[in-house]
Amino acid sequence: MAAKRVFFFGGGKAEGNGAMKDILGGKGAGLAEMTNLGVPVPPGFTISTEACNLYYRYRGKLPQDVKAEISANLSKLERVIGKKLGDPKNPLLVSVRSGSKFSMPGMMDTVLNLGLNDKTVEGLAQKSRNPRFAYDSYRRFLMMFSDVVLDLPKGNFVDIFDEKKLERGAAYDVDLVAEDLMDLCGKFKALVKERLKREFPQDPLVQLELARDAVFRSWNNDRAKYYRKTNGIPDDLGTAVNVQAMVFGNMGDDCATGVGFTRNPATGAKEFYGEYLVNAQGEDVVAGTRTPHQIRDMKKALPRVFDQLMRITAKLEKHYKDVQDFEFTIEGNTLYMLQTRNGKRTTAAAVKIAVDMVKEKLITKEEALLRLEPQQIDQLLHPVIDPKARLDVVARGLPASPGAATGAAVFHAERAVEWATEGKDVILVRKETSPDDIHGMDVARGILTAKGGMTSHAAVVARQMGKTCVAGCDAIDVDETTNRFMVGGKIVHEGDFISLNGTTGEVILGKAPLIAPAMTGAFGVFMSWADAVRRLKVRANADTPRDARVARDFGAEGIGLCRTEHMFFAEDRIPIMQEMILARTMENREAALSKLLPMQRDDFKGLYREMKGYPVTIRLLDPPLHEFLPKREELMVEVTKLELIHADRSIIEEKKRLLERVEELHEFNPMLGLRGCRLGIYYPEITRMQARAIFEAACDVTREGIRVHPEVMIPLVSMAGEMRAQKEIVVAVAEETMRRHKKKFPYTVGTMIELPRAAVTADEIATEADFFSFGTNDLTQTTFGFSRDDSGKFIQNYMNRSELCPQCGAKLEKDLSCAVCKVTYTKRAENILQADVFATLDQVGVGQLVRMGVEKGRSTRPGLKVGICGEHGGDPKSVEFCHRIGLDYVSCSPYRVPIARLAAAQAVLREKKPGKGGKK
Amino acid sequence: MAAKRVFFFGGGKAEGNGAMKDILGGKGAGLAEMTNLGVPVPPGFTISTEACNLYYRYRGKLPQDVKAEISANLSKLERVIGKKLGDPKNPLLVSVRSGSKFSMPGMMDTVLNLGLNDKTVEGLAQKSRNPRFAYDSYRRFLMMFSDVVLDLPKGNFVDIFDEKKLERGAAYDVDLVAEDLMDLCGKFKALVKERLKREFPQDPLVQLELARDAVFRSWNNDRAKYYRKTNGIPDDLGTAVNVQAMVFGNMGDDCATGVGFTRNPATGAKEFYGEYLVNAQGEDVVAGTRTPHQIRDMKKALPRVFDQLMRITAKLEKHYKDVQDFEFTIEGNTLYMLQTRNGKRTTAAAVKIAVDMVKEKLITKEEALLRLEPQQIDQLLHPVIDPKARLDVVARGLPASPGAATGAAVFHAERAVEWATEGKDVILVRKETSPDDIHGMDVARGILTAKGGMTSHAAVVARQMGKTCVAGCDAIDVDETTNRFMVGGKIVHEGDFISLNGTTGEVILGKAPLIAPAMTGAFGVFMSWADAVRRLKVRANADTPRDARVARDFGAEGIGLCRTEHMFFAEDRIPIMQEMILARTMENREAALSKLLPMQRDDFKGLYREMKGYPVTIRLLDPPLHEFLPKREELMVEVTKLELIHADRSIIEEKKRLLERVEELHEFNPMLGLRGCRLGIYYPEITRMQARAIFEAACDVTREGIRVHPEVMIPLVSMAGEMRAQKEIVVAVAEETMRRHKKKFPYTVGTMIELPRAAVTADEIATEADFFSFGTNDLTQTTFGFSRDDSGKFIQNYMNRSELCPQCGAKLEKDLSCAVCKVTYTKRAENILQADVFATLDQVGVGQLVRMGVEKGRSTRPGLKVGICGEHGGDPKSVEFCHRIGLDYVSCSPYRVPIARLAAAQAVLREKKPGKGGKK
Repeated sequence: MAAKRVFFFGGGKAEGNGAMKDILGGKGAGLAEMTNLGVPVPPGFTISTEACNLYYRYRGKLPQDVKAEISANLSKLERVIGKKLGDPKNPLLVSVRSGSKFSMPGMMDTVLNLGLNDKTVEGLAQKSRNPRFAYDSYRRFLMMFSDVVLDLPKGNFVDIFDEKKLERGAAYDVDLVAEDLMDLCGKFKALVKERLKREFPQDPLVQLELARDAVFRSWNNDRAKYYRKTNGIPDDLGTAVNVQAMVFGNMGDDCATGVGFTRNPATGAKEFYGEYLVNAQGEDVVAGTRTPHQIRDMKKALPRVFDQLMRITAKLEKHYKDVQDFEFTIEGNTLYMLQTRNGKRTTAAAVKIAVDMVKEKLITKEEALLRLEPQQIDQLLHPVIDPKARLDVVARGLPASPGAATGAAVFHAERAVEWATEGKDVILVRKETSPDDIHGMDVARGILTAKGGMTSHAAVVARQMGKTCVAGCDAIDVDETTNRFMVGGKIVHEGDFISLNGTTGEVILGKAPLIAPAMTGAFGVFMSWADAVRRLKVRANADTPRDARVARDFGAEGIGLCRTEHMFFAEDRIPIMQEMILARTMENREAALSKLLPMQRDDFKGLYREMKGYPVTIRLLDPPLHEFLPKREELMVEVTKLELIHADRSIIEEKKRLLERVEELHEFNPMLGLRGCRLGIYYPEITRMQARAIFEAACDVTREGIRVHPEVMIPLVSMAGEMRAQKEIVVAVAEETMRRHKKKFPYTVGTMIELPRAAVTADEIATEADFFSFGTNDLTQTTFGFSRDDSGKFIQNYMNRSELCPQCGAKLEKDLSCAVCKVTYTKRAENILQADVFATLDQVGVGQLVRMGVEKGRSTRPGLKVGICGEHGGDPKSVEFCHRIGLDYVSCSPYRVPIARLAAAQAVLREKKPGKGGKK
Repeated sequence: MAAKRVFFFGGGKAEGNGAMKDILGGKGAGLAEMTNLGVPVPPGFTISTEACNLYYRYRGKLPQDVKAEISANLSKLERVIGKKLGDPKNPLLVSVRSGSKFSMPGMMDTVLNLGLNDKTVEGLAQKSRNPRFAYDSYRRFLMMFSDVVLDLPKGNFVDIFDEKKLERGAAYDVDLVAEDLMDLCGKFKALVKERLKREFPQDPLVQLELARDAVFRSWNNDRAKYYRKTNGIPDDLGTAVNVQAMVFGNMGDDCATGVGFTRNPATGAKEFYGEYLVNAQGEDVVAGTRTPHQIRDMKKALPRVFDQLMRITAKLEKHYKDVQDFEFTIEGNTLYMLQTRNGKRTTAAAVKIAVDMVKEKLITKEEALLRLEPQQIDQLLHPVIDPKARLDVVARGLPASPGAATGAAVFHAERAVEWATEGKDVILVRKETSPDDIHGMDVARGILTAKGGMTSHAAVVARQMGKTCVAGCDAIDVDETTNRFMVGGKIVHEGDFISLNGTTGEVILGKAPLIAPAMTGAFGVFMSWADAVRRLKVRANADTPRDARVARDFGAEGIGLCRTEHMFFAEDRIPIMQEMILARTMENREAALSKLLPMQRDDFKGLYREMKGYPVTIRLLDPPLHEFLPKREELMVEVTKLELIHADRSIIEEKKRLLERVEELHEFNPMLGLRGCRLGIYYPEITRMQARAIFEAACDVTREGIRVHPEVMIPLVSMAGEMRAQKEIVVAVAEETMRRHKKKFPYTVGTMIELPRAAVTADEIATEADFFSFGTNDLTQTTFGFSRDDSGKFIQNYMNRSELCPQCGAKLEKDLSCAVCKVTYTKRAENILQADVFATLDQVGVGQLVRMGVEKGRSTRPGLKVGICGEHGGDPKSVEFCHRIGLDYVSCSPYRVPIARLAAAQAVLREKKPGKGGKK
């Protein structure tokens, strides 16, 4: 028997169930599960994701046996519902929707009212006794089908529609009468014929086939791919197609349609939450073209149905043990549930809901911890508007996604990307957003729309992205042509600063002062659960007492990386640093170093005081010395200029001497040159000065009654001998200093493992090192041979090759044609990299070296303390990897500490429950 | 019982034997072995190398039990020889010599005639009835002991001696009479007292102790350490001390002393070979202060002893199965053998001797192959003077070390090092050389001395170093003060070019034309044996047909690396290359590439024709593109100049446009930037052009009836996806080209493994690559994080730290004091690197990655062909490593091919006979 590819639901039971998301997609599995639960769901069937993959495997042709299965299910549906597709008397209308394993809102295309044609529309008019409804359904279908299936942009149809309204003096869609709509249907069909040189398909079976294939194709449209890429969803899952009998919320005033959440998705509060529209189809709510009513108002308007909806959704929440995001339609006072799924929510809401549900004993603490993607927490760590600030609030919209943002107003996604690339903070302002705006939303600090509700595209996407969003702010009048908006008589131009409060919905002119968030309330409870579970310690990379304080506030358990060189770039220090570097004799060098000593000592005292006994890992000077000097080429130009203008001889000579020294220090590949421990070995007096500063500071702070625990880290070690040579100096200074100050405290001397050779010879190096810290930035550089400074260009190319012409590198058109080469390809090139290896640890390559380093290191020094201090230390996937290979701690930037804490807890939980992990 | 530390020999038998080199040293083991063979050897005892190590362990104090053993052996010696140390009537005189496991000629200090003092000298005079001999022995002892043991430089004594000769009008030493020598002894003792503020030690037991300790200390003198370092001898072996009864070659005309070889050490001819001096001590022969007689003349002068010497040495050669380098003394017509050891020889001689001895059935072919250090072969591959050249031969000296050299004359080792560092070829010209000149000899192309014989310091060391040397050329008058020499009325100043023919002894003015050597005669036979044994194939790195021809002549079995970029640096091509790089559109870039195509195609045709079906590995373009453009900083200076002098606007604009593109391509770390396969992926049209050139050339050459076997190598791959992307292009072009030309030939597409990630993910990469070639230059760079261009400075420091002050890096004095820091250290710093990792493969780190790459690669592609094409491919130790880990071939520069062939054969033999390897 061939595998089953189509699954029926309806008549009280379903062939599938909620666990079958892989093959039914989220929506299909939900419909099956609801049907089985006895929830009223319009009947239908789901064509599985496997069929989608077959569709791609056979290059757009679905195998015969699958077609036969679809046909059989269609007959069954016709039997169950007592209508027939294409029957002019009693036509079956269906919706065709996509639905993949992971919800991809706004990404997949949907067709409603399929089955209408010139004949069945008449049957519908007669049967419903509502010609206006029938032709409104038909014109909607014509437009949607043309847009989604026939690739004729919606805009053309909207223009005709708007013209008609103008012609008829109609303010709203509902003001148009049946005849107007009939006329529009004719105009829409004429437009299709004109553009496509063929008639709009009248055969409902053909319509169904075309729509089904369009859903399949939509899996690979640019928006879907972009969404998958940014959300780490694999490209080979495929989408299911849900074919479901239509029910109508727009057949009269006893009809309605709505969406809702079982709890407030913005705040997490346990309140029934949502919106509905009377006499409307679902798209009207989501698209934000009509501003809907609050769902609580339905209690008065349709009390019986409201109660039924409350009961059903409460049952669903209990069943799914999660907030439900549901869609429903009321047709002639009868309630139909169209969809339910776990509701997207703001991070704040997610935390509150998770904590509440534990209290309600719906879920366990461990389940609660797995409910958040660690990355999401970032949203809670971003600033809010200072409540004490005096603000120029000019309007108030819907508080669609909380937080606060400030930036320059821009009116198009392209401009947003452009300015953001230049490092500017931008707020994207639109009448309403559509999937085409996703790029712009992604880079914006915040989003402001004039239209749409809490479940409009802008609101849903912004919450998910963790962006501040104020939606449906109809007090603003956006003109996207002239790039400005008017509000209360004021005009805001492109580039003017505005601020948003996504928690209150306020729109503010100018830059509002933002303040940092706190780790209190539900969030504090939640994080305390994470801390109780995790095994990995989390430290922060911090170079200043201020950073150290933020890190402690966010729960850091020490400093994993203090980069001492950052201290030397300060304005008052760099001249002394230069004096040290330019010194021709050791005496002069030591004289300069002795001026740096007290400064460094003060730096370290500040860190020790903040960390109150937590370990502070201090890395000795790492960068090549020429980083502290004027640039070689600029000096060359300067000398040339001075000579040509016959400047004073002595000035020229001085510049030339400086240039000479800069030339001496010049390196072709400074990343691979005289830096790291090589510096300290070449100039041991630098190491001695830094060691003195570290241990004298420790003695001083100990004297203040504060515990200290310095860990001295030797950078860029490739051989045990280097470690030995530097350690000798550090230990000698440490012992001498403690003796002199009559103080004792624990200290260790370890190394950064940031070169492949250090990883593969970690057994030798561990005999000399008290601890290892993997510097995965540098390790990634040398393992790949990618300079972080220079590789952006080709790393981008590697990640985007599937979008590019394999011949010339130009961006491909949608149809895989290249405008430059005039060639159309049959397949896309393979992307060489899936993610930027400087953001997410390359586990296969670099990770293998890390694992080897840990194992080898502990083979000669059992119990060796091992951590990681590259950028990867704050990346959740990389944190999980660090946990798996047995690291002791991760260290990341202070703002990523809570993210790492949660990721570390999840790593423990995932280890316990294999397969319960999130998407890979 | 305590371990035995002192070993007696004499009276027909010895406590040790020849196999005990480790503890008796080479000389001591030889004396024991000779004694056991019945060869007449003066009796004595050897204090073992273990005693030396004890001496160092106890910081210069020998343990009591060892002292007791020495004392017992001294008594035994006195009994055997019937004389007593310090006995005024019948004094025993002894020599005290060093002798370590590996012969270190000229490095270790020796004291002769020990036991003489103011009383015993009188006894010696009476007993020998030769006061002149007695006082000559005493003055020699005083001088030598003062120099070697008391650290009073010999020069002071020589000055007094020369003064005396002047005063006495003596031309030669022998012209001085007993009274003169007695007077000199007094003056010598006075000098000692004046300098050291104490008397010259008169107690022979004290003399013996002091001398013994001086020998121990000499193990760590700078010359010895330098020798060990350059010859890879471990520092912890220690030296033995040989105390042996003196016999005298200088007691009259029936006395003589000499050194010899059982075969000619310069040519390998089977002829008795050596030099002797009548009425002389051994040092007179070796020091080169008197020009000795050929040993064949001894047949007439001392026929009976000569015959005995011939018999004994022939027996020794048969016993040791190797050429013997022996020392003997004749005292009153009685022959004593003082030493025998395997003789050092030129490489040509070594080859001839090895081949002859196989013919004589003395040794096997396999033993013969192990008789040469592969590195030595280099000497046979260097040029000789073109026999057809017209030469200005101005003098003829001894043909001390064969080959030919040309260079600027320099007169001091320091200047030789200085100029050689600047890249100049130099010839070191000295009156005679001493161990202090070793640094200079090491860097010189050739050595010319005015004094000394075939076994003088210059001759012995030069042969060993494989340097051309003309010694004892008394026609030249060297003035080391004014830095010039006179010859036949001409003056040669420092810097003037001269040439040497080390095979004929000719000294030539000007630059003589040199020609390459051939692989014929014994060398050809020898190499054919190596080829029969080795498993590793040997290929050459060659970019031009000329290089390819040399490689074939040297036995290369293919090209392992053709660097295509070298072809683009040619003067006629670089403008086109620049045009390609500066192109703003693909059309323009392809236009430039189409001009490069025919040039590349011709290059490859030349290579294929030379290699006649042997595989030719062609690496696609590798370096970053800006290497082909003017330098950024120079352009910046140029633009600045042009602007300041108000040059024509259009010229400035053009330069600025160029600068703009150069800026675009500028990278901070080009080694880690857009190069290697990243280039070919970014600009696929470059790969396409190169592939076309490779395969079109192959088709053309196939048409000429010559077989071809191109192997296309994708550089700098770190991920399988990169390999896949480039291979796709190459295979498409290959198939298309062969189809178009209707030709078929084998080809493969593989990659260079030169990044750590490629090594650790070799299993993935091998699924795409037909072959691997380890690019160990780049792999070393990224594994260590050492840029080859920038790391010289600290790699030198890492290799020389034991010579440097750990505080300031200044060179330490002999006594471990630092003149800068005014500190004296008790121990030296550890060297962090033993060898330059760019010359000898770092087996522990980089080698581990290579091994991993081979194993992982073959895990997914069994039988994967694997080679190496870094500089290490020609380094014998690295070749052995490559053999051990199962590589298929090594590829090296053409001139190193024979070295690699021999190293590959030895690797097989060493594998068979573990422990029979050479020094590590």
